Amino acid sequence: MLKRFPGRVGIWCLKRPELRRTKCALYSASGAYLSDRSYHERRENSNENFSKRRVVGVVGVGASFLLGIYGYRYLKDDRRQVSSTEELDEEVASYSGKPGGRIDGLPTYKMADVAKHSSAEKRLWVTYKEGVYDITDFVDSHPGGDAILMAVGSALEPFWNLYAVHKTPQVTKLLEQYRIGNLDPAEAKENAEGHDPYHADPSRDPELVPSNKKPFNAEPLPERLIENYITPTEYFYVRNHLPVPVVDLSNYAIEIEGPGIKSTSLTLEELKKMPKHTITATVMCAGNRRSEMSQVKEVKGLYWGPSAIGNATWSGVKLSELLEKIGFDESTNEALHVQFEGLDLTPESNPYGGSIPIEKAVDPKGDVILAYEMNGKPLTRDHGYPVRVIAPGIVGARCVKWLNRIVLSKEESPAFWQRRDYKGFSPNVTAETAKWDEAAAIEELPVISAICVPSKHDHVHVNDDSTVTVRGYAWSGGGRPIIRVDVTSDGGDRWVEAELVEKSDARPGRHWSWTLWEVKVPVTASQNQVELWAKAVDSSYNVQPESFKHIWNIRGVLNNAYHRVPINLVR
Amino acid sequence: MLKRFPGRVGIWCLKRPELRRTKCALYSASGAYLSDRSYHERRENSNENFSKRRVVGVVGVGASFLLGIYGYRYLKDDRRQVSSTEELDEEVASYSGKPGGRIDGLPTYKMADVAKHSSAEKRLWVTYKEGVYDITDFVDSHPGGDAILMAVGSALEPFWNLYAVHKTPQVTKLLEQYRIGNLDPAEAKENAEGHDPYHADPSRDPELVPSNKKPFNAEPLPERLIENYITPTEYFYVRNHLPVPVVDLSNYAIEIEGPGIKSTSLTLEELKKMPKHTITATVMCAGNRRSEMSQVKEVKGLYWGPSAIGNATWSGVKLSELLEKIGFDESTNEALHVQFEGLDLTPESNPYGGSIPIEKAVDPKGDVILAYEMNGKPLTRDHGYPVRVIAPGIVGARCVKWLNRIVLSKEESPAFWQRRDYKGFSPNVTAETAKWDEAAAIEELPVISAICVPSKHDHVHVNDDSTVTVRGYAWSGGGRPIIRVDVTSDGGDRWVEAELVEKSDARPGRHWSWTLWEVKVPVTASQNQVELWAKAVDSSYNVQPESFKHIWNIRGVLNNAYHRVPINLVR
Repeated sequence: MLKRFPGRVGIWCLKRPELRRTKCALYSASGAYLSDRSYHERRENSNENFSKRRVVGVVGVGASFLLGIYGYRYLKDDRRQVSSTEELDEEVASYSGKPGGRIDGLPTYKMADVAKHSSAEKRLWVTYKEGVYDITDFVDSHPGGDAILMAVGSALEPFWNLYAVHKTPQVTKLLEQYRIGNLDPAEAKENAEGHDPYHADPSRDPELVPSNKKPFNAEPLPERLIENYITPTEYFYVRNHLPVPVVDLSNYAIEIEGPGIKSTSLTLEELKKMPKHTITATVMCAGNRRSEMSQVKEVKGLYWGPSAIGNATWSGVKLSELLEKIGFDESTNEALHVQFEGLDLTPESNPYGGSIPIEKAVDPKGDVILAYEMNGKPLTRDHGYPVRVIAPGIVGARCVKWLNRIVLSKEESPAFWQRRDYKGFSPNVTAETAKWDEAAAIEELPVISAICVPSKHDHVHVNDDSTVTVRGYAWSGGGRPIIRVDVTSDGGDRWVEAELVEKSDARPGRHWSWTLWEVKVPVTASQNQVELWAKAVDSSYNVQPESFKHIWNIRGVLNNAYHRVPINLVR
Repeated sequence: MLKRFPGRVGIWCLKRPELRRTKCALYSASGAYLSDRSYHERRENSNENFSKRRVVGVVGVGASFLLGIYGYRYLKDDRRQVSSTEELDEEVASYSGKPGGRIDGLPTYKMADVAKHSSAEKRLWVTYKEGVYDITDFVDSHPGGDAILMAVGSALEPFWNLYAVHKTPQVTKLLEQYRIGNLDPAEAKENAEGHDPYHADPSRDPELVPSNKKPFNAEPLPERLIENYITPTEYFYVRNHLPVPVVDLSNYAIEIEGPGIKSTSLTLEELKKMPKHTITATVMCAGNRRSEMSQVKEVKGLYWGPSAIGNATWSGVKLSELLEKIGFDESTNEALHVQFEGLDLTPESNPYGGSIPIEKAVDPKGDVILAYEMNGKPLTRDHGYPVRVIAPGIVGARCVKWLNRIVLSKEESPAFWQRRDYKGFSPNVTAETAKWDEAAAIEELPVISAICVPSKHDHVHVNDDSTVTVRGYAWSGGGRPIIRVDVTSDGGDRWVEAELVEKSDARPGRHWSWTLWEVKVPVTASQNQVELWAKAVDSSYNVQPESFKHIWNIRGVLNNAYHRVPINLVR
């Protein structure tokens, strides 16, 4: 099982002078690892029994903290040569104590003692229940360099409440390898009493099939997705990275700051007094269709199907107008990026964040909106109430929800999700060799399409004219309209152009909406099975790549290879 | 051989009331058809003997006029059932007369008689030397619909001088099938005395390897191409569609007109008084690398290698500033396109033309330049002296040379090259099924790369570290920078990231220059041959498609599949 939890984990950093280094959060905030349940399994489950739709997947968010230790200690540490993952599994399994339980004969510490051990010189300690652990050796030589744990000098429980993937016997047993003492029982009880950080999450529509519940991530069934050109809010995909914040409007205001502008604080009411703009724009997760890429080789992240995308109308204030109003002058301003921070917080109270290039933000034709309405109604909590960013043509991860702060800067957002996530890599780059600082953050997305009807392995009725009817969507980033969708049932010997049945008439460069298409694809009389392929072409004549093999990447993002759907034919 | 000359040909149209229909020029102005000589053959020839570099290929421009008749008459006419191309070849070969020679017993006509036969009612006649021909039957049922010949009622010689591909025994023999009479010998002599329309073309540098000489089209050798980040003017590829016009500066002025602007005429001197801007931008032909696509199935057009691209500095006036100066107001102006016309003319005195979207033209960051300097010196005649358009990030075909006229319009340029050429189609679209009016004109180009060193079938020295050194270029349209180039020697089992050795630091959206790259790719000790593949990724994370099969198109444009170069290893 070890292979499924790579030792390298994502990080983000805070300057912590007491550590004499930058302190970094060590986790993959980008998604749970669904070890046992693929997208298609989820989908089938959902089909079989609608009432079971809210299946409990393997809950949790990402390879993280001790998973990192787990992989690293056993694979890299010279002192322990482990020849196989089976050996490791055995070793971990052989631990028979109760994780975090009191062990007689070990010294007892207070949290105050533990807190002193949060610098390299004084060793790095953490606690879990009644256990105290020294993880210094790991931290000093961690492959992620300065990827130090946010939790050093404190308790693990708040992290593990947030990223529930840790709550497995393997992880807790492994932790015991680092055991050095016992924690004062009263303090251990206090640490354990952390509430579920997701307790205030909203209820969701049963149309949404979750790939993860904490944080909540879910998509509709593909055939439902393309029923409407404007995706109804209730089954617009949800991609949360953290618990949904509870916003008190009486305290809510967006702070805006940066060089050359007047620092400003805007309540929702003040925002609504500015000119209101409405755009129709598709928003898509960088991980959409990841379950297909994972067929080549496993990747990190939520195993999305093809429905982590939606098209909605968004109303709010144009960022370009707001910035102009508070004094932004492009000819003199040195800012290169506009950073956004959400109200959703990590255990260390660091906000979710992302940034977009300044050119996009200040271009009136870039149509970046601080949206307070979705499909004509106030944003729902899952979609960012009261205000979120809509940066059309750009990856969903930058469309920061529960918007709290806007910062103009020469630098991209320092947030984990901008610096250590949502980047593409060459297929042969591994977690160990990835040069995160050199890779480009995903902003504009490439051209993509998907077949939504039929679904994989469906039994499909052959039309009288020896065709099957195929329907789906296509979209491209950067405001580039879709100019063509080709579909084949014979491996591309005969491509058939789809009819673009619903699309926007917006001009290239400002064409933010998806295109819905339909086509009747000929099938040979003798065939009982065929594999449908779809590919789209955008106005720059960029086309989808053929297969996942050559675009595979460690994070499983940018899954825009031809969509291939094997089906059974029924006559 | 017939298959090589499809019956369908490109057209452009003039309203000719006397024909009671639109009169159309019937030709492919976009390039010669090299039936016998591929790019690599040209290249090898060039390598073998530099002095023979200016090889005379199969000269001419496009499938055209009688080639259209040729294909159509024999394939479609019910009266003649030809079972194979061999049969047709035999039939044509059996004609033993002298094409255009006098045939006793036929009536003799004057040009004035022929001119009367230029309407559907009065039959459609043409002449060639002393021959008079009635091509009505073909014209009435031509698969191109209203694709009537520009030459009806007149002599063919001016067309054939311009598009020398007609001057083959096959075409002239075929013409005799339509023979109805003899032309007055004195008038025939007059017709024959037309001068070579290319007589005033400039001399060219021997570094340029022509794929066609009339009109002149040539590219440098790939290894020469990437020697410089800024391509020297003398071997910057040349893609002319017509003879190079002779420009008299004392008569030269650019006319600008359209709704909502002050009609303006600007001499070069006046242009130079406006603020001068310099940009560095790559210009590429839509047909670059076409010789590779033709390996899948033959395509129409010049068989370019990978060097129909170059990167230069361009200085001149910003179109956005010029338009603003003469009153353009985007908030009220209804124009959607900016059309350009060159001084290069067809036999019927129609100019070469193309257009770009208005948004590109009026955006100061779009950097569209009316350039009068290339690499710091006045434009050469081959590159558009005195003024050409540089629309960076957009296909070379819209960067109109010898600029004569600018028209703002709701419509795209009516020119052949905008409406009936330089468009992409689905692989299964044929000349007969192509819906030209529905297809999108190529503007922004997709991401592309090429391996320039080594070349196909080169014997390459293996480095001491068991690698081979590979170098090339990569580029993308729309101002999108290249963020990565991957190269493999084993079919993509192991991709190696190239170093981006020379590139611009311009921001995304305004990144007009190419990127030069270099990489050492590992090769297995036991291999004597490998095939190198290269693919690039741009800032929108669009990536090149894998193979030509699924992007093949009738016009052989947008040849951006992985560049695949088989080489021999030398140790």
